[in-house]
Amino acid sequence: MSLDTDMNITGTQARAAADSLRLTSSETKSEALCAMASQIRSTASTILAANAEDCTHAHTKGLSEAMIDRLKLNPARIESIAKSLEDIAAMTDPIGLIDKTWTQPNGLDFTKVRVPIGVIGMIYESRPNVTADAGALCLKSGNACILRGGSESTRSNRAIHAALVSGLTQSGLPAAAIQIIQTTDRAAVGLLLQGLNNCVDLIIPRGGKSLIARVQKDARIPVLAHLEGLCHSYVDGAANVDKALDIIENAKLRRTGVCGATETLLIDAALAADFLPQIYARLSAQGCELRGDMRACTITPDISLAADEDFRTEHLAAILNVAIVDGISGALSHISEYSSGHTDAIITEDPAIAQHFLNAVDSAIVIHNASTQFADGGEFGFGAEIGIATGRLHARGPVGAEHLTTYKYQLRGDGQIRPK
Amino acid sequence: MSLDTDMNITGTQARAAADSLRLTSSETKSEALCAMASQIRSTASTILAANAEDCTHAHTKGLSEAMIDRLKLNPARIESIAKSLEDIAAMTDPIGLIDKTWTQPNGLDFTKVRVPIGVIGMIYESRPNVTADAGALCLKSGNACILRGGSESTRSNRAIHAALVSGLTQSGLPAAAIQIIQTTDRAAVGLLLQGLNNCVDLIIPRGGKSLIARVQKDARIPVLAHLEGLCHSYVDGAANVDKALDIIENAKLRRTGVCGATETLLIDAALAADFLPQIYARLSAQGCELRGDMRACTITPDISLAADEDFRTEHLAAILNVAIVDGISGALSHISEYSSGHTDAIITEDPAIAQHFLNAVDSAIVIHNASTQFADGGEFGFGAEIGIATGRLHARGPVGAEHLTTYKYQLRGDGQIRPK
Repeated sequence: MSLDTDMNITGTQARAAADSLRLTSSETKSEALCAMASQIRSTASTILAANAEDCTHAHTKGLSEAMIDRLKLNPARIESIAKSLEDIAAMTDPIGLIDKTWTQPNGLDFTKVRVPIGVIGMIYESRPNVTADAGALCLKSGNACILRGGSESTRSNRAIHAALVSGLTQSGLPAAAIQIIQTTDRAAVGLLLQGLNNCVDLIIPRGGKSLIARVQKDARIPVLAHLEGLCHSYVDGAANVDKALDIIENAKLRRTGVCGATETLLIDAALAADFLPQIYARLSAQGCELRGDMRACTITPDISLAADEDFRTEHLAAILNVAIVDGISGALSHISEYSSGHTDAIITEDPAIAQHFLNAVDSAIVIHNASTQFADGGEFGFGAEIGIATGRLHARGPVGAEHLTTYKYQLRGDGQIRPK
Repeated sequence: MSLDTDMNITGTQARAAADSLRLTSSETKSEALCAMASQIRSTASTILAANAEDCTHAHTKGLSEAMIDRLKLNPARIESIAKSLEDIAAMTDPIGLIDKTWTQPNGLDFTKVRVPIGVIGMIYESRPNVTADAGALCLKSGNACILRGGSESTRSNRAIHAALVSGLTQSGLPAAAIQIIQTTDRAAVGLLLQGLNNCVDLIIPRGGKSLIARVQKDARIPVLAHLEGLCHSYVDGAANVDKALDIIENAKLRRTGVCGATETLLIDAALAADFLPQIYARLSAQGCELRGDMRACTITPDISLAADEDFRTEHLAAILNVAIVDGISGALSHISEYSSGHTDAIITEDPAIAQHFLNAVDSAIVIHNASTQFADGGEFGFGAEIGIATGRLHARGPVGAEHLTTYKYQLRGDGQIRPK
C-alpha cells in the first residue's frame, strides 16, 4: 500500500473514532485510562525490553548521553507513566462543561458548552512517556489522536501504544482513538501536516527548534506550538533583597533545562551595586556562569561580557545573562525586545509597579514575587500538560486537557422565527 | 519604496500601535469610537462622492447589479455605519475581564485575564461598511489592524478610513492602530499572509470561496476563516407541524443570501407524507424551488429530483434541497456527511431526541425549535460581528469583540520558590 493511502486510512479511522468519542461518557473514558495504567504495569517487561533496544541503537548512532538519559525507561519511570494515566482518569472531564448560559428577549436560550476539537496530530521527540501523556490527555478531552514520536524511541513508543490500545478496547472504545504512525518515513509527517483530507483538526509539535520550524512552515492546518522559553526575572529597586536572592537562585538553578528557567536577570540600576555582587557570589558558588552587559561588568568585574546574541539565547544551562536597567521602564523595553513571550517575572515590594509590570508585559505568564519555574501545568493545577503554548491563538501557557477542547452553541427555542 | 519595505513599515507601525493599545483605557477607546462616528457623519458627502466613483468604475468593469448594490452607499447606510460605531463604543470592554482566579496550596494566586491578540490582518470584499466595523471591533478589543478591502471599493474604503483615523488621533491614539493597505498590488496580500516579520498575529478573511481558499493555502500565520453555511433543518416525527412549517419558511426564505439560511430540509419518514405536501405548497407559492431525493419526489411528484451535488451546495437562493430520512439517526448521518459545520437545527416536541441532536451534531451552532437564521452575532447579543467562524480553533460561530481577545496568566506570590 502506498504511504498516501496508508495515511489517509489512518485519518479516516481517526475521524470515525472522534465521532464516537464525542458521545463517550466520562465514566467510560476514565475506565479506559485506568485499564491503560494496568496494562502499562502488566506489560512493563515488554516495554523495558523495547526501550533497551532503542537505547542500544541510540548508542550505536552516537546520540548524546543527555538524549539517551531522556530516552531511557526504568521500573520507576514505567510506574510514573501508569500513575500519570490514573491521575488523568481522576481529573474532571472538561467535555460538557458549560462556559455560559443566557436568554435573549425573544425567549431563545443559549448554552455555550465545551466539546472536543476532533482529531489531533501530535509530533514529538525523545521521551517515550509523551506517548502515554498525549494519548491520555486527548482521550480525556474526547479527541482522537495520531501520534508520531521520534525515530530514536520507535520501539518504546510502540510498546507503550500497545498498552494504550488494549485499555481502549477493554472499555469498548475504538482502537483508532489513539493511533501511532508506524513508518519512519519522514514523508508521513508531511502528509499529516496537510491534514489528511480534513481528517486532522490540529497539529501539536513538541521538540527542538528545527522540528517546530518545519511544522510551522509546512502545516496547512492549525498548529499549537511550543517555542522557546526565553524568560526574564526583573529585580526592581523596591525589591526585598533576600527574597529576590532566593527567587533568582531558584528561577535559574532549580532545573536549568526546563522552559520556565530564567535566562536573563534584569536589575534596577538603583539596586544593582547592592544586589549584583550578592547574586553573583551565590550563583557562581554553584557553578553558574554570569554574562553581563557593560554596566553589570563595571559593578562586578569578574562577570564576563555578554554578546547581544546571549540575550537572545535560551541557554537551558547554568548560564545567566545579566543586564542593568533603569527602573521598570528599562525592564519593560528590554523584555519587549528580547522576551519569547513565555514567562517573565518581577520582584518588588511596590504593588503599583508590580501591577504595571503584570499589565504591560505581553507574555503568556507574568509573575510577581515568585520563581519563573512555576511555569508548569502541574503547578497551575492542570494535572498533566501536553506542552506550554507560546502562540497567541486558542490556548496560551500550559496546555492541559481543558485546553484541548472547543465549544459550540446550543440554542433552545419554542418556535422562534427571526423577524425580517 | 519597494512593496516589501512599505509593507514591513506597515507591520512595524501596527506592532507599535498594538503595544500602546494594550494599555489604553476603555474610556479612551470609547471616546475614539464616538469621535469616528461624528467624523463619518461630518464627512458623509466626501464618502458618498468616493463611493459614487467606485460605483461608476464597477459599472464600467461590468460588475453584477447584486455586487453593485452591496457596494453602494447612501445617507441611510452612512448613518448606519456611524450608529454601529456608537453601539460598539457602548459595549462592555472585553479587555481586562477575568475568566478565572484561584489560589494554589503554596499561596500563589492565579488570575486568567483577557488581553488583546495584537495585530489583526483583515482581508475582505465588497461592502464598505466592513472597513468601519472591522476597524472598530479591533480597536474595542485593543488590537491594531491592517485592512485590505476589495479593489472595487478602494475609494469608499479610503474615505471611511480617513474618518476612522481622524477619530483615533482626536483621542490621542496612534493613527497606525487602524491602517489600510493603499496599493492595489495583489502581492501585498501575499506579504500580509506571511505575517510581515512576526508583526501580524492573525488573519481574518471575509469574502467568497476563492479568497478563503487562497488565504488558507498561503497563510503562514493563524487564520480565523468563515467558510460556507450549508445549514440543515430536520423535522422530526415528533414535531409540531404548524411550528415546523413556520420555522422552515423562515429558515429558508427570510433572507436567502445569508449564511444561516437553511439549504437542506430533512424530514422524518414518519411525518413526510403529512408534512412535505404542506411545506411544498407554502414555499412554492413564494417562488421557492424544491429539489428532492427519490423518496421526496415519490411523495410529491411536482418536486424536481436533486443531484447529490445539490446537497453539497450553498445555494444562497430560493432553492431548498429536501431529503426524507429515517428518524434522528438518518438525520444525523445525512448531516455528518453534508453539513459544513455552521448551523443545524431540529424541530421536535420530544426533549430527549432534541438533546441527542444537540449533543451529536458537530456544528458551531445547533438549534432546537427555532430558525437557523438566528445564526448571527446580533441575535446572540454580541453586538456587531466580524464574521462567523467555521473552524474549530480559538473561536467558533459569531465572532464579536470578545472573541478577538486571548488571555494571559498573572501569578502573584510572596517569595514562592519551586521545590526541587
